[in-house]
Parts: sequence; C-alpha cells; structure tokens
Amino acid sequence: MSESRIHNAALRGKIMSADEAAAFIHPGDNVGVSGFTGSGHPKSVPQALARRVTAAAERGETFRVGLWTGASTAPECDGALFKANGVSMRLPYQSDPECRNRINSGEADYTDVHLSHVAQNAAWGHYGKLNVALIEVVAILEDGRLVPSTAVGNNPTWLELADKVILEVNAAQDTRLEGMHDIYNIALPPHRQPIALVAPADRIGDPYLRVDPEKIVAVVETNCSDRDNKFSAPDENSRLIAGHILDFLQHEVKKGRIPANLLPLQSGVGNIANAVMAGLNDGPFDNLTAYTEVLQDGMLDMIRSGKLVCASATAVSLSAKALADLFANMDEYRKSIILRPQEVSNNPEIIRRLGTISMNGMLEADIYGNVNSTHVMGTRMMNGLGGSGDFARNAYLSIFMTPSLAKDGALSCIVPMVSHVDHTEHDVQVLVTEQGLADLRGLSPRQRAKVVIEKCAHPNFRAALTDYYRRAEAGANGKHTPHLLDEALSWHVKVLRDGKM
Amino acid sequence: MSESRIHNAALRGKIMSADEAAAFIHPGDNVGVSGFTGSGHPKSVPQALARRVTAAAERGETFRVGLWTGASTAPECDGALFKANGVSMRLPYQSDPECRNRINSGEADYTDVHLSHVAQNAAWGHYGKLNVALIEVVAILEDGRLVPSTAVGNNPTWLELADKVILEVNAAQDTRLEGMHDIYNIALPPHRQPIALVAPADRIGDPYLRVDPEKIVAVVETNCSDRDNKFSAPDENSRLIAGHILDFLQHEVKKGRIPANLLPLQSGVGNIANAVMAGLNDGPFDNLTAYTEVLQDGMLDMIRSGKLVCASATAVSLSAKALADLFANMDEYRKSIILRPQEVSNNPEIIRRLGTISMNGMLEADIYGNVNSTHVMGTRMMNGLGGSGDFARNAYLSIFMTPSLAKDGALSCIVPMVSHVDHTEHDVQVLVTEQGLADLRGLSPRQRAKVVIEKCAHPNFRAALTDYYRRAEAGANGKHTPHLLDEALSWHVKVLRDGKM
Repeated sequence: MSESRIHNAALRGKIMSADEAAAFIHPGDNVGVSGFTGSGHPKSVPQALARRVTAAAERGETFRVGLWTGASTAPECDGALFKANGVSMRLPYQSDPECRNRINSGEADYTDVHLSHVAQNAAWGHYGKLNVALIEVVAILEDGRLVPSTAVGNNPTWLELADKVILEVNAAQDTRLEGMHDIYNIALPPHRQPIALVAPADRIGDPYLRVDPEKIVAVVETNCSDRDNKFSAPDENSRLIAGHILDFLQHEVKKGRIPANLLPLQSGVGNIANAVMAGLNDGPFDNLTAYTEVLQDGMLDMIRSGKLVCASATAVSLSAKALADLFANMDEYRKSIILRPQEVSNNPEIIRRLGTISMNGMLEADIYGNVNSTHVMGTRMMNGLGGSGDFARNAYLSIFMTPSLAKDGALSCIVPMVSHVDHTEHDVQVLVTEQGLADLRGLSPRQRAKVVIEKCAHPNFRAALTDYYRRAEAGANGKHTPHLLDEALSWHVKVLRDGKM
Repeated sequence: MSESRIHNAALRGKIMSADEAAAFIHPGDNVGVSGFTGSGHPKSVPQALARRVTAAAERGETFRVGLWTGASTAPECDGALFKANGVSMRLPYQSDPECRNRINSGEADYTDVHLSHVAQNAAWGHYGKLNVALIEVVAILEDGRLVPSTAVGNNPTWLELADKVILEVNAAQDTRLEGMHDIYNIALPPHRQPIALVAPADRIGDPYLRVDPEKIVAVVETNCSDRDNKFSAPDENSRLIAGHILDFLQHEVKKGRIPANLLPLQSGVGNIANAVMAGLNDGPFDNLTAYTEVLQDGMLDMIRSGKLVCASATAVSLSAKALADLFANMDEYRKSIILRPQEVSNNPEIIRRLGTISMNGMLEADIYGNVNSTHVMGTRMMNGLGGSGDFARNAYLSIFMTPSLAKDGALSCIVPMVSHVDHTEHDVQVLVTEQGLADLRGLSPRQRAKVVIEKCAHPNFRAALTDYYRRAEAGANGKHTPHLLDEALSWHVKVLRDGKM
C-alpha cells in the first residue's frame, strides 16, 4: 500500500516493521498514543513494544513506559502493554480489563483527568517529558501532512511535544476520512484567543495533522480494524430511562426553555447512552445537532434517519457493523460529521456557549445529588472520569443516568452518601433511573433528597433511604445536608462484608 | 440629594420611604437584591421588609420571600431578614450568622450554586419567577440609565427578569464610581457568542445598568456605608502560607511555565487570601493583573504600590479604612479597576482562556486532594461555594489553602476522607498549609497521598494519617484510591463525640 497511502517519498524511506519501530522506545520513556474509545489507536507497535517488555522481564530487567492516550484504546494497545506489565503511569480514560486490573492491584499508577485538560497539562510539562508520539493515520500527503484516523484525541499535542514520532498508516481505515477533521490549535495562556466556534457544524481549523518531518523516525504499515464496540440492544431499563428523558425534554420545549430542535446533544459512552439515542431517533425532535466526545452507533443511526443534521466529536466509537456502514456510505456521512481535537470537543468555553444537553452514565448517586462515576465501593477504579466533568459543569442540562439497581438487585445505585465524588451536587441537575426522573434544578439538599428517593430509588431500597434521611434530618449536627457520619457509608461497608446492601 | 443623584424627573416622582417601597413586596415573592461580599447591597428596604415580616408574625401570619443575591450581603440585608425568619429560600453565597443559623436549623432552604451559573439559571426559570429587583445604585442619569454601586453581581439579570424594580440610591457611595463598570450581557443558548475579552483590562460592555423605566415602582434614598470588611493583620500561619505560594510561583516562572508577571490572579475571600496578596505586594513580581470576584484590601494595596496594574472583579469588599482610601483617591484607582457582572467575572470561558492563578480557602482536604469548602462535619453549611468552582476547574493553577489545624489544634484540616466534596481531586492542583505546599499535578491518588501527608499535614496528625493510608493500601478492595470505608469518616465522627480528632 506504500504508494497509495504514503505520498511523501522521504517518509516511504522510513517504512519498517513494528518491531524495528518499537526499538525507538526506551525504558522510562513517556509515549503519547493516538486512540479514543477503541478507535484510531495504534494497532501494531504497542504489541511489538509489549514483546520487548516481556523479553526484558525474561532477562530480569524492568521495561516500563508512561502511556498517555486520548481515552480508552483496545486489546492490541492497552491490553498488550498492561498484560506485559509494561506501563508505570497511565492517563487519562481507560477501559481495558488488563489495564484496570494493574491499576486496582496497585501495580500501575493512573492519573484520571478531565479530558479537556490533558493537552494543556502535557504542554505545561505537568506529566514530564513526552519522548515518543505513536499515532495512527489514514495517509501521508506528499508535503508530509497527515490524514487523521477515526479519532483525533490528543494527537496534535503529542505530535507537537514528542521528540520522536512513529506513524502507523492503517490500510483498514477509509481514505475518504480525509476532510472530515477540523484540527484547531489552542494556544497556552497568556496567548489564548476566543475559539470562534458558535455552532457544532462550524469549521475553524484545517483537516490535517502537521508534524516536523525531522522528528519522524518510523512509518509502520498496518491493516487492522478498530475495536468492535458492540452495543447490546436496548433493554427494558434503558428504554424506560430514554422515555423519561424524552418526556422531560418535551416538557422543557413546551415551557419554552429550549428550542424545538433542542440544544446540541452530548452523550456519554455505553449502552444506556446509546439507547437514549435510539429513543431520540424514534422521538418527536428534528434537526438535532450533537456536540459530543464520541459518536456511537445510536448517533450514526440518527444521521442516517435525518434526525441528526450534524455531529461534532473527537472520535467515532462504533460496532464493526456500523463502522462498515460508515465506510460504505462515507460520502453521505461526511457531510454531517466533524472530528476535532479533544481539547476542542470538550472545551468548557464552547460547551458553556452552546449550552449542551449532556447525558452521562454513572455508578451511583446519593440522595443529595452527588455522583460517583468512577470508583466501585470508593476504591476500585472502573474506567475514569472521561469528559463527564467538562460537560456536566458547563452544559445547559446536565443529566446523569443509571439503572436503580446493580448486581442483580444486590446494590442500590441511589445511596445515602456516594463512596467517591466525581460530580458534586452543584453540577448535577437531573438524575434518571428506570424508576423516574428527578429534576433537581433550584432545589436545596433537603428538597433534593425527597425527590431523588421518590423518583429514582428502586422500591426495594426506598424505605431504607427514607429512614436514613429522616433519622439524619432529626439527628444531624447541621441540617443543611443531613447525614449520620457513622452510618453514611455503611451501605458500602455492608457490600464489602455481605456482597449486598 | 434628589437633585444631585436622581437626574430623571419621572423617577424623582417615585421617591418614597423604605417602608412605602417595601409594601410592593408580597409574601411568597422572589426578591433579587444587589450585593456581593458586603458591598453594594440594599441598606434600607430589607430592614423595612423585615419589619413587615415581624408585624405579620405578630398577627399570626407567615410572610416569607425567596432571597436571591450576588453573594453575601450584611446585617442590614441578610441579617435583618433572617433574624425575622422572613426568608424561605436563599441563594447563592451567604455569610451572615443569622442566615447561617436558619439554614443549619432547617428553617430556611439554601441553594448553593457556582456563582457563574446564577444568572443563567434564573433566566431559564429554574428558581421560579422573579417578582422584585431591589438594587442599590450610585445615581440615576437623566435618561434613566443607572450608575452601578460597589458591586455588580447579578444586577443586570435581576433588572431584566423582575416584574417590579425598587432602587436604592445611596449617597454614601462615591459618584466617581461612574465609569468603573463594564456591563456586558451574555445571551442564552442558542444565541450565545464568544465573549471578546482577552485580558483583564479589556472593556467589552458599557458602564451603566439599563432597566425598563415602567418597571420601577419605587426609588429610596439612603446614606449608609458598605459593610466594614475587617481583615486581621497576617498572622504567622498566613505569612507561611503566602511564603510557600511565592516560592512556588517563583519556581514556576523559573521553569518557564508562566510569564515573569505571572498570569491573572484570582483570590478568594478572607484573611488568608488577603495575606497572600500582602505577600505578593512585598514579593518579586511586577506588572501583575487580577481577574477575580472581589477586590479586598490586599489588592487595593497592590494597586497603590504599583504592583498590580489592573484588577477585574464583580465587587470591592474592603474594610471601612480601605473604602475611604478608594473614595479619597478614586481618580487614580479607577484607572486600574473594572467591575463586571458576576456571570462575566466568573465565566469559565474567560477563566480558561486567561489561565488564572486561583487561590481559594477551604475547610479541609483529604489525603487524595479532594476539598471541602462548605460543610462543617459534612452537614453544617458555612458560607457556600462562591466562585471557587468556577475558578478551580478552569484556572491554570488551582491552589487551595488552609492552616493545617483548626479549633486550637483539636482538628486536622487534612483528613483521611473529606466529609463533603466541593472540589474533586481533578480540580485541585496545589494544596498549601503553613507546613508546606503539595504540588499534585500529574500524580495518581497514591502518589498524592504521600505528598499531602508529608507536605501539608500538621506533625500532630501525620503519623495517624500515614497509619490510615498504609492500612488502607494494604486492606482496600481496590488500590487506586485506598480507603477503609468503615473508618474513612471516623475522624469526623470522633469530633462530634469528643470535640476533637
């Protein structure tokens, strides 16, 4: 494929195997890779690097790197490297089981970060020196510009900061991705200017990644699909959650608070978020737009149906079937999709300006509306914060959703006090479970508690929550946010002891 | 004074007593008042309203209103109304003892909100209908435009939303405040545009408040100073905290991460923040700027000394002595001070763009860097969140500070787990106590714990914190953020039982 995808002669001269390329990465290096929610990550060099890690271990040597990404990758990247125990520090969002296990066993450090912050933190040097950028691209132009792949993530920043650059040119990605991206560079203070984006469809940058060609040490040819991000068909709970949200949005439109075509949608990752999109696709709203992180199957369906006229994201995160559909109908889809750096897709300036309707999943919420998105029983990292904080604090409507029960009913997702706080009461306007929707806007904590218990808690746990709340209100030292501190986390303690709340 | 301050003849015809004006306010009304950190609040009508509340109570009737402000007011506003128990719902920030007591006794509801959110939430109707705006001004121009007072706060929004407007024209405020303000209206989505402010000194609006003259039902003349916001002289702890911050900023400049004149400063309210400004006034940095909420005595000193060339805020919050100095030298000071609506002073778009250095106080932090700014022992509201969340998440440097001990050494301000979270680990980059400074940037939770305990905890509690951390690390279900959930809040439980940790 060299001729058809790598149009720059000098860079054709740097084509080599993944193993040869991986030799440019040294123990202790920080490596910035492409990839966001299972798309656009490097497919080949990370596995070669993992082999080097394993070989070093067999010689009794330690070979570990810092691994910085856009968000989650896939088995051939995070999976391979963490299986070999080759990562000392990982940031930001992850979802690979091998990775999660190393983090929770204490073998790897993990820095969870708001996704909009990663690029500027790295540029300021908070994470140390970036030695190598390892970036998947679709093609290399004659003048050396790069056609980005299915995820932009932090690629512009990694290419800028790294001493050495390794490119993977993936023949499995459609060349007609060219032109879909909008790469805009945000300067660091004190040089930062207003970002002139006032609608999701606006283009403010240019479609290519740029890199100093002198820094490119290797070009590796691959032919490997993105992760098959399988979505389950919406189950009863997801349909109920979607239904509550649709009813609420119709009510908001009727009240005149939002336009008939809503405001730009942001939808988190996973099955429930996907089901809500399916609900919107069957719903009464037209001419919708999205300003979001990832475009999942549900949003692609909405583009195909004509419901969604524009989706701005930093990555697609599709099932293999939907990705095939995207590539088969690229000329149509590319009219409606823009992929941006995650510093732009998740930028508070733009989110506040557009006033998104943000819908994100959670692990648990407490009766006062604080949300735990990340820590199982307060200590075990699930996936990380992702962009939920970028959106929740700046959205017009900040909605968090979960089924009311987990672990076959053993756990209530509404608890007296969350075991970890990712989103404070100040950033959570609406909570939704299959039981109902709690509109918390403008309510005090005591008012919120009543609504959350009544609308969102599962009937199996409602009486116990009400009992806790009443005793806390009677007994608490201060009655602004009534708690019994010796009991507030007892539901979680019970789970650790008995396996249920 | 009518002739000299109220230049509009029609409005001169609406001059009346505070008692007459208060008669326009009815039980159940929502009243939006001016005022931010003890400045620019109405001085007379709230007391007249409190008398009506008391008279109603004596007749066996209930008279309560919703009270919306910019931030804290003073005894003649919050104090009088809460003493009479005349407020059902209060928002956002407050600091009056009468107000705090009603909130913590459960007699009044309180909605704590990011200060940048108040105007848009009110405009969207989340708090219900605004019936009356009660606004202090310095003068009324012939064409009806209003010269704002020492605080802008949410005044433009209250004037826009309210059915009826009552103006207090305060002869104690210097008429040369005219021209100091920059009133800029931020539209609601989907009509919001970029805010074209790229430096703290930029002016993007105009100096006057506007209001439909038909809505003005009363004009009340007052002559009463703002609250005397007394600051104690910096004590040893404050000087040490300031010293750690100065050392750190010098280190950042040396590393090339921030310019020699730093980045725009944001400083929270209170004595420690004021002491840090005193430290900066004696420090090595010149040509400083501030983009902040309130201008306290320390910043005024820095303007006088020439260290601070521009301060943008939404209010001044000065001691009586400093306010007299401001008024005595107004022609000089006004060159360097701009007062804006709090939706602009606290806007995430601008804060992220400018990359402020934000320094805010806190009640307690935990070993993982989560911060409690508001809730004593998890339940008692102190003052509220203020703008700390607007700044902490969007600043370039987000610094939180407190002495390491409280209550004469009975309490450690560094605890295993905070009893309430206002700022998550993701928004806290630097923690400072008199003991030292913990730079948490780029660290995982386990790495943070070691630094926080070593640098910030008081020696009296360091061993106990280390012991907790070690046992948590050994015993926790997941080791990403090690906790022992049955013990995490035990330090607070002990305080409630024994009065000490």
